[in-house]
Amino acid sequence: MDQDKTDIGFSIVAEDEDGMARACRFTTEHGSVETPVFMPVGTYGVVKTLTPAELEASRAQIILGNTYHLYLRPGLEIIQGGGGLHRFINWQRPILTDSGGFQVFSLSHLGKIRDEDVTFRSHIDGSLHRISPEISMEIQRTLGSDIVMAFDECTPFPCSYEQAQESLARTHAWETRSIEYFRRMEPLYGHRQFLFGIVQGSVYPDLRQRSIDVLSELDFDGYAVGGLAVGEPKEQMFEMLERISPLLPKEKPHYLMGVGKPEDIIMGIDLGIDMFDCVLPSRNARNGTLYTHRGRVVLKQSRYKMDYTPPDENCDCYTCRNFSRAYLRHLYMNGEMTGLRLNTLHNIHFFLQLTEEARTALNTGRWTAWKTEFFEGYPVEKDHWEINQVRREERRRKHLRENPHINE
Amino acid sequence: MDQDKTDIGFSIVAEDEDGMARACRFTTEHGSVETPVFMPVGTYGVVKTLTPAELEASRAQIILGNTYHLYLRPGLEIIQGGGGLHRFINWQRPILTDSGGFQVFSLSHLGKIRDEDVTFRSHIDGSLHRISPEISMEIQRTLGSDIVMAFDECTPFPCSYEQAQESLARTHAWETRSIEYFRRMEPLYGHRQFLFGIVQGSVYPDLRQRSIDVLSELDFDGYAVGGLAVGEPKEQMFEMLERISPLLPKEKPHYLMGVGKPEDIIMGIDLGIDMFDCVLPSRNARNGTLYTHRGRVVLKQSRYKMDYTPPDENCDCYTCRNFSRAYLRHLYMNGEMTGLRLNTLHNIHFFLQLTEEARTALNTGRWTAWKTEFFEGYPVEKDHWEINQVRREERRRKHLRENPHINE
Repeated sequence: MDQDKTDIGFSIVAEDEDGMARACRFTTEHGSVETPVFMPVGTYGVVKTLTPAELEASRAQIILGNTYHLYLRPGLEIIQGGGGLHRFINWQRPILTDSGGFQVFSLSHLGKIRDEDVTFRSHIDGSLHRISPEISMEIQRTLGSDIVMAFDECTPFPCSYEQAQESLARTHAWETRSIEYFRRMEPLYGHRQFLFGIVQGSVYPDLRQRSIDVLSELDFDGYAVGGLAVGEPKEQMFEMLERISPLLPKEKPHYLMGVGKPEDIIMGIDLGIDMFDCVLPSRNARNGTLYTHRGRVVLKQSRYKMDYTPPDENCDCYTCRNFSRAYLRHLYMNGEMTGLRLNTLHNIHFFLQLTEEARTALNTGRWTAWKTEFFEGYPVEKDHWEINQVRREERRRKHLRENPHINE
Repeated sequence: MDQDKTDIGFSIVAEDEDGMARACRFTTEHGSVETPVFMPVGTYGVVKTLTPAELEASRAQIILGNTYHLYLRPGLEIIQGGGGLHRFINWQRPILTDSGGFQVFSLSHLGKIRDEDVTFRSHIDGSLHRISPEISMEIQRTLGSDIVMAFDECTPFPCSYEQAQESLARTHAWETRSIEYFRRMEPLYGHRQFLFGIVQGSVYPDLRQRSIDVLSELDFDGYAVGGLAVGEPKEQMFEMLERISPLLPKEKPHYLMGVGKPEDIIMGIDLGIDMFDCVLPSRNARNGTLYTHRGRVVLKQSRYKMDYTPPDENCDCYTCRNFSRAYLRHLYMNGEMTGLRLNTLHNIHFFLQLTEEARTALNTGRWTAWKTEFFEGYPVEKDHWEINQVRREERRRKHLRENPHINE
């Protein structure tokens, strides 16, 4: 089976009348994915502290694996011997793997970059390794993920225009080599794989535009927005997204990599993004922070000592149905692993439920109302510009509705 | 309701014809317990890494909580505020709590012992506390456990005869005060509590005999054997147990505290013990050691790198039904908490299944055959005296059967 014959079966199920938000569906051989979707991160072939059964019970549709980490540990031989990542980790729903590039640049001390390839040192034992677009494709073939990410270079922030321009040229060359190799590649475990391209261009609109032009020509199965959420002010991220998003091929999934907080995900959906991933819910769970519709519950605060209510009254996860904040606080203060997993279970459930609610809102034409309700109940963390952003956007749309002659 | 009116509803369901092994049943208001039974240890109100749902699915009948630890963290106010230990930790089956004495002596650096009470320092923050038989009963009343343990002094090993004698006198005085206080005590949460006495006397048969005489008079709801498995050679432990066990009140549950390895539990059952508890399955799980019918699987060994078989082919736990040794090794080597919980789940399940198999064997008259099969398949750890012990015992019984005129 030739991988270029695949079709991800993408369709738009519902669209917000007033904006870019949309509910979509696409299909892999491990099942369909309804978007907007949050993808829990399973770096080493496990969503930290959880089991596949728990993820399924929380209706996770697709999880993410990190190519760089899995390549180093347990290594490809062990995963291939185990019948590929799905079988090895016992997860029968879709898996998306990143290209390994991001970690090579962010974790590797060497990271010697040439046009041909990148040489890097393992962050575990310092051993030397080489990665290239072709090697990344081959590794992801061995992992057997349903969605393979093209090999790109992620620009840091800040990044000068010249740097961004140079990096983008390399990214385009690498992504072209990625898709060329991918198209000739036979799948290893019988199921099809799909390839997503990654739009780069830092915070420069014309570079982003060019990136989308180049990558659209290559006809990937989906398009990710990379190089955002890398340290730039969040306002800048959303401004950029607002420009990029309408330019992305409409009939393909849109994926915003590494985002984010609940409010960021909702803003992302509002700007036409379909897919999200972030370590935030699981990492913060292990730091004793629970997400709820009314904001964060920080378990180390003594106010929860004798708070016998569940983390979120309206949540139907195992944690909320069975345990109180006081008990979770006790477990957390004692360093009990059971506490960390109950926290993680809740947070992952919360993020999955949030995108589920967003889907329902879109499917029932209630997007703006639902979004407004969410922000009314949810105290956005620290800075409040997100809320301002929402309100500004709403004012703008109201203005457009009332003045239909203005061309967007 | 006056606690001395309670009846634990003990009955012997089956007895081994050739020896002391027996299957029994007793009943608390949180449910019945079928023995032989293994009680997972939930020191701080949680069996480390697991949830109540998992323990229920593994058919745990009763768990143990540590009075000393729970008294210090989260403290009685928080547990009482949460409606007692059952509600606070969301475990609706029976709970047994120890008296706190053992930890006071083993963890406390002060441990100033008087006949009246014991002053000790918290191992957490060094704060000063006082415990006495009455205080121990009161704490266990606040915890609301189904089975309360009398406050005793656990002798160390080695221990001179004089020390043991002196300690035993104090233990008897304390246990008498325990039962006197307990009988006047109103239960706090509506359900009855039962009180077990603890036989001491170190390794001295006449002291053990005296202890049983004194405590039998007090008519506890069950009898524990304390002061064993505290460092004495294991052969000595079983020799002592062999002497003590026939003297224990037959129509009461017999509990061997802090034991042990799978082979020890089987030997204990063989010597008339009904109840066991030990941190071994959970602690060793967190060290990457899995128990199986064919012995231990030590995950850090490289032989398991590409071993795609489950830990135990015949085990029906979630871990064995879904994951390979290779995957569990990967998780363990990576320090993934999911691995520690999957290991724990398996080990606890294994210990529970082992006692379940023992019950079935007793109920179907197959005790000796089952025990022999177990030891044929299971490589006993390190020293092999246990097997010798089993074989010697079997030879003895055979001899007795063939020479019925010899009076035991």
